[in-house]
Amino acid sequence: MTEHFADRLMDAVRRKGSRLCVGLDPRVDLLPPDLPGSASDPAKRVESFCLNLCLGTEPYAVAVKPQAAYFEALGAEGMVCLERVMCFARELGLLVILDAKRNDIGSTAQAYADAYLGARPEVCGPCLQVADAITINAYLGYDGVEPFVNKAHEHGTGLFILVKTSNPGSGQLQDLRLESGLTVYQHMADLVAQWGQDLVGASGYSSVGAVVGATYPEQLKELRARLPQTPFLVPGYGHQGASAADVAAGFDKQGLGAIVNSARGIIYAYRKREGTFTQAAAEAAQEARDELNAAAQ
Amino acid sequence: MTEHFADRLMDAVRRKGSRLCVGLDPRVDLLPPDLPGSASDPAKRVESFCLNLCLGTEPYAVAVKPQAAYFEALGAEGMVCLERVMCFARELGLLVILDAKRNDIGSTAQAYADAYLGARPEVCGPCLQVADAITINAYLGYDGVEPFVNKAHEHGTGLFILVKTSNPGSGQLQDLRLESGLTVYQHMADLVAQWGQDLVGASGYSSVGAVVGATYPEQLKELRARLPQTPFLVPGYGHQGASAADVAAGFDKQGLGAIVNSARGIIYAYRKREGTFTQAAAEAAQEARDELNAAAQ
Repeated sequence: MTEHFADRLMDAVRRKGSRLCVGLDPRVDLLPPDLPGSASDPAKRVESFCLNLCLGTEPYAVAVKPQAAYFEALGAEGMVCLERVMCFARELGLLVILDAKRNDIGSTAQAYADAYLGARPEVCGPCLQVADAITINAYLGYDGVEPFVNKAHEHGTGLFILVKTSNPGSGQLQDLRLESGLTVYQHMADLVAQWGQDLVGASGYSSVGAVVGATYPEQLKELRARLPQTPFLVPGYGHQGASAADVAAGFDKQGLGAIVNSARGIIYAYRKREGTFTQAAAEAAQEARDELNAAAQ
Repeated sequence: MTEHFADRLMDAVRRKGSRLCVGLDPRVDLLPPDLPGSASDPAKRVESFCLNLCLGTEPYAVAVKPQAAYFEALGAEGMVCLERVMCFARELGLLVILDAKRNDIGSTAQAYADAYLGARPEVCGPCLQVADAITINAYLGYDGVEPFVNKAHEHGTGLFILVKTSNPGSGQLQDLRLESGLTVYQHMADLVAQWGQDLVGASGYSSVGAVVGATYPEQLKELRARLPQTPFLVPGYGHQGASAADVAAGFDKQGLGAIVNSARGIIYAYRKREGTFTQAAAEAAQEARDELNAAAQ
């Protein structure tokens, strides 16, 4: 295993022939009826749900992206569950991108970086510090980003900084035009490139990545050209409305440089398909993988 | 107890004669030597540290601000600790502002709002959902803020949105000038006012507040004038370098409208004072309260 996040990511994409990241957004009210366990222990049910999703979708995905909010909503037991899910996914060979969008002043950002990055589960046993990468919000500027960049240097982890997000209101701040002529998201994109320039690996990509929503395909295309060394984590595909054609612009000429997240379309596939929830998720993941591979051609 | 966050906050300021918020940033490497408990159980020691700090500083403070990062850095046990600290502070009559700077797309922001706001500990027992208010990063626009605004309407909780942060690099994005002539932080300030306009209480203040750092006193003054109905949570006082004179501009003509956070200057006061760590923190809190009251005149 190389100690460089972006190289590991691009290797995994090539080796597995997949650009799919499965979003683990376990909502208690949407858990499948065939899931074992008691309703009085939601964290245990969520754990079982997520472990089965990892098992079922692993052949078709390069990464999973647990969404911290849904685990935090279960209280402290949810964090135990998150720990187990992240460690299990790593054992299966999946990369783990923790979607936490953390941000703070330098000393506190250091605590967040220490909370989720840098440990090796094979050495320390299950803990929260096993994410391969984490999502970051850089509204506070570089001092809140630096501890994550340092982790990337020291531990081979990665970070994905919010540039242009997939939600309807993302333009309210991100699309504003600056005096310089750039939009806020373009300015943020340039900062991301600058912050990541010392972390470009053999793959040609930096361990400092960007979150760019597939729901804004024009901006995705523009940012792909603007950030040739920045790997993209692309949300918005599937349930949020973006098609495989929309995400196509996120890939480089080799079909690399981006992984595409799908959460609800895969993890709740049981609602529209036959079989167990795991089978349904596996089928949906396989289809998504194939669709994304075709789009990346 | 009124069901409106800003009214409860202003009532507490008047009743207690204090504008002080004690920041609970428990770093394991800085825990005082007189703290009981074993080094092998850091979460238990952090809990004991924080409960004692709440007890000691309660007479001089209106609120505590637990910094989520330091609890998350302790793993799942840290979240149990956070739960107990928040519930204990509430029992003492302190307002609890969870400093978590959460942000995400709408559906996920809802999960964050559900994770930390809206429960009554006297009914449900200890849980994480007992914060009176939470800090929020609005880089994603209103759909990520709305679930917290809805909680304010339904449960009388509050939110403080990052406008101009206290850290050295805050200007990197926040000070950029837009085509409109406003800076990014001024534009964010106007959004905060707009998002909070339906939540203005009898006190004249909205439950949608702003985070404005005392380390930028000119901007603090300017924003006080710009946002007459927005309560401020002001970090940066004390250890981060801002003086009481620097924070003075954050108050309105009645000396209201802002609470000022101090973390390290109070919770680690034992390093520069005689007595137990609790006594040292209590003394430092009393002095900070008096200094802030003088500044608010």
